[in-house]
Amino acid sequence: MALENILDQPLNPWMAGGGPDGDIVLSSRIRLARNFEAVPFPNRAKGSQLAAIVDQMRKSVNDLTNLDGHRYLFIEMEKLSPLERYVLVEKHIISPNLAQEAENRALIVRDDAAVSIMINEEDHLRIQCLAPGLNLNDALKCANKVDDAIEGRHDIAFSEQMGYLTACPTNLGTGLRASVMVHLPALVLSGQINRLVTAATQLGLAVRGIYGEGSEAVGNIFQISNQLTLGHGEQEIVENLYSVARQVVDHERSARQALLAESRDVLADRVWRAYGVLRYARSLSGQEALSLLSEVRLGIDLKIIDEVPPVIFNELLVTTRPNFLQKLAGQAELGPAERDRLRAQIIRQCLEDNKTRGGK
Amino acid sequence: MALENILDQPLNPWMAGGGPDGDIVLSSRIRLARNFEAVPFPNRAKGSQLAAIVDQMRKSVNDLTNLDGHRYLFIEMEKLSPLERYVLVEKHIISPNLAQEAENRALIVRDDAAVSIMINEEDHLRIQCLAPGLNLNDALKCANKVDDAIEGRHDIAFSEQMGYLTACPTNLGTGLRASVMVHLPALVLSGQINRLVTAATQLGLAVRGIYGEGSEAVGNIFQISNQLTLGHGEQEIVENLYSVARQVVDHERSARQALLAESRDVLADRVWRAYGVLRYARSLSGQEALSLLSEVRLGIDLKIIDEVPPVIFNELLVTTRPNFLQKLAGQAELGPAERDRLRAQIIRQCLEDNKTRGGK
Repeated sequence: MALENILDQPLNPWMAGGGPDGDIVLSSRIRLARNFEAVPFPNRAKGSQLAAIVDQMRKSVNDLTNLDGHRYLFIEMEKLSPLERYVLVEKHIISPNLAQEAENRALIVRDDAAVSIMINEEDHLRIQCLAPGLNLNDALKCANKVDDAIEGRHDIAFSEQMGYLTACPTNLGTGLRASVMVHLPALVLSGQINRLVTAATQLGLAVRGIYGEGSEAVGNIFQISNQLTLGHGEQEIVENLYSVARQVVDHERSARQALLAESRDVLADRVWRAYGVLRYARSLSGQEALSLLSEVRLGIDLKIIDEVPPVIFNELLVTTRPNFLQKLAGQAELGPAERDRLRAQIIRQCLEDNKTRGGK
Repeated sequence: MALENILDQPLNPWMAGGGPDGDIVLSSRIRLARNFEAVPFPNRAKGSQLAAIVDQMRKSVNDLTNLDGHRYLFIEMEKLSPLERYVLVEKHIISPNLAQEAENRALIVRDDAAVSIMINEEDHLRIQCLAPGLNLNDALKCANKVDDAIEGRHDIAFSEQMGYLTACPTNLGTGLRASVMVHLPALVLSGQINRLVTAATQLGLAVRGIYGEGSEAVGNIFQISNQLTLGHGEQEIVENLYSVARQVVDHERSARQALLAESRDVLADRVWRAYGVLRYARSLSGQEALSLLSEVRLGIDLKIIDEVPPVIFNELLVTTRPNFLQKLAGQAELGPAERDRLRAQIIRQCLEDNKTRGGK
């Protein structure tokens, strides 16, 4: 898979599988922060030092291919247009932070986009492994293998007392952040979500919107991640998050069954109306699109809507983001109204195509 | 066409044509109030006197058939269930007043439902002639022919000084009420409707909702009718209403063009969303259904929506009324929630069928 494919296709290949509890947990993610020994952290390093790290990391590409047989691409951020960088953000392949500046920054990404390494973001290296569904262990195993391959070639800053050294003290220790992206429409509809956010926070977890820190929880999608790393082992962090995620899944599932039992007709009307608007609207804001898509996905999961497959939700989550739309539109810069029109058009087309394909 | 057909089919045959300005004027109607000479008005007559009038009128059925070759049905109201009577109201064949009580009341109706004579409503006879589109003259000609046929056989109360005598003094003189049913979504959307209602009222006309006096203007449908009759000739009344209706049509048409010119995209989004909700909702109240149907009809008239023909609007106006729904449902009495579900189901089915049939 070439870079063009990664940029053009809304659905990352690793997303297609579904995975355990894939009706509620869209993806599991492990991120490891790593820094080169004896080189200042990116925000204090000279340009030449950062460039040297980029050069060093180029050598790791073959190591990674030898590791798992996948193709890995090495991409200097300067070779990408700002638009292309933000498409990678919308596809959850890089962080908004990395997209902001291109100089001396690079990305290694696996052909299926399940593994990516950001170079010279807040830390020298940010290793990210993604897995479909609730599958933190596989993501952790994958991240550890990638980390081993990198540490086999490069000297990584590590203190016996503090663990991995990182630019921000909140990452000190394992340098690990584990997160799950969960779709919780029933907990939102039934008003239970706030209690859940409070409970998760008390357990040392953070609950955020779909694009991480500072983003809103549009489309009823939440990212739950560990906050603490210093003083905790990798396995402990992952198990803690896993056990909370399991409870969240169970609560969401109960809330869905309660909705079905108590107000099946109201729910059916609601999700079908959302589907009807998506099928025919001529203009859709990003926020409205996500809300309606969330309701449609709930309808699909509850077997109320059978006209389209569940994966259209994951696909349209990306396709309808502003930068992805701009990429589709080509040269001419889209105004907000044109963007809303294009978004509606793409959703209509996608639902129509999938209806025909999946039509029973 | 038997009574069963008149009750079961939502679209009266005379509606299918469209008629002049049929995109805005759904129908034109002439009603003549007539009373038998030397018999008290219905609210003061004895049962035996009313029964005698019903008997007398039975003889007019053949006269009417000889007049225009159409079949005419004679229906005693007591032979109909209350539900069937109210279906006739929803189809604009009889008035709510006639449906309320059945004793000594009857109806003569032409096989295409374009002509009906209510017997022993407020007056002994209420002759009604309907024509599609803006076509008051044809409706008046038709009503006069029917009136002549009746007056050829029966002695009708008439004073040289006051004209036709009627139970209510507002009908004295010609006994004529002329009305047009107009669909004015653009005047409503653009906020011009109130000015129009005020102007029409100053010209001695009444503007009401779809089911006459006291009914709300749901679905952007209005009935405009003359208020005054004493001291005015038939032709004068009809010409006065016609000229106002023409202006209303012109204003509505200008308002539609202005909407297209100023906010085509917003309008397209709005009418397609309405269509999407109608195509997929699982529950629709009568009022919401009419509002959405009105927007869809506007979309069809402005050639924004091309998936379904305009006549579905006229058809669904009747099909989605409570009594018609109850008739469709058969024996079991519908609760409000069931009715809303059945309404949504029928609308979905109708749009689906017409899409397939008319599909381009």
